[in-house]
Amino acid sequence: MINENILGIVAGTLTSLSMLPQLIKVIREKNASDLSWVMILVLILGLSLWVWYGFLKNELPIIFSNAFAVLVNVCLFICYFMYKNK
Amino acid sequence: MINENILGIVAGTLTSLSMLPQLIKVIREKNASDLSWVMILVLILGLSLWVWYGFLKNELPIIFSNAFAVLVNVCLFICYFMYKNK
Repeated sequence: MINENILGIVAGTLTSLSMLPQLIKVIREKNASDLSWVMILVLILGLSLWVWYGFLKNELPIIFSNAFAVLVNVCLFICYFMYKNK
Repeated sequence: MINENILGIVAGTLTSLSMLPQLIKVIREKNASDLSWVMILVLILGLSLWVWYGFLKNELPIIFSNAFAVLVNVCLFICYFMYKNK
């Protein structure tokens, strides 16, 4: 029998990892013109609600992976406006 | 008191919606050179594990939103190789 928490942690690690290359690319190239700030904002809102959902259901893998995703996307959002005019 | 399922559905709708602009952009411009196929593959794997997690926990919002995300990213993956050489 698979442990649900371990499954959640592996799933969360993979979906979290998959976001990093974009952030690294944007920071390296100092260019975020391919991103849409509206999309990032919608995503941050959605991810924050997932964190809330995780708290209500008391599920740590959901809380951690979505909180990490909020962090990455807040960084992307900041980068977007920092590098916008370059 | 907030209903957890409604919260999950709203959260899932927002995070799902936020993926569509990228897919639309790639299809419109027939250009996926900004994407990394490794990242998309890691993401598809992670999202699939979330679907599995949703089944184990019997949580519909998690199953639906991640299954939708798998679908969007499989499309992106296909687009990547279709438009790769343009």
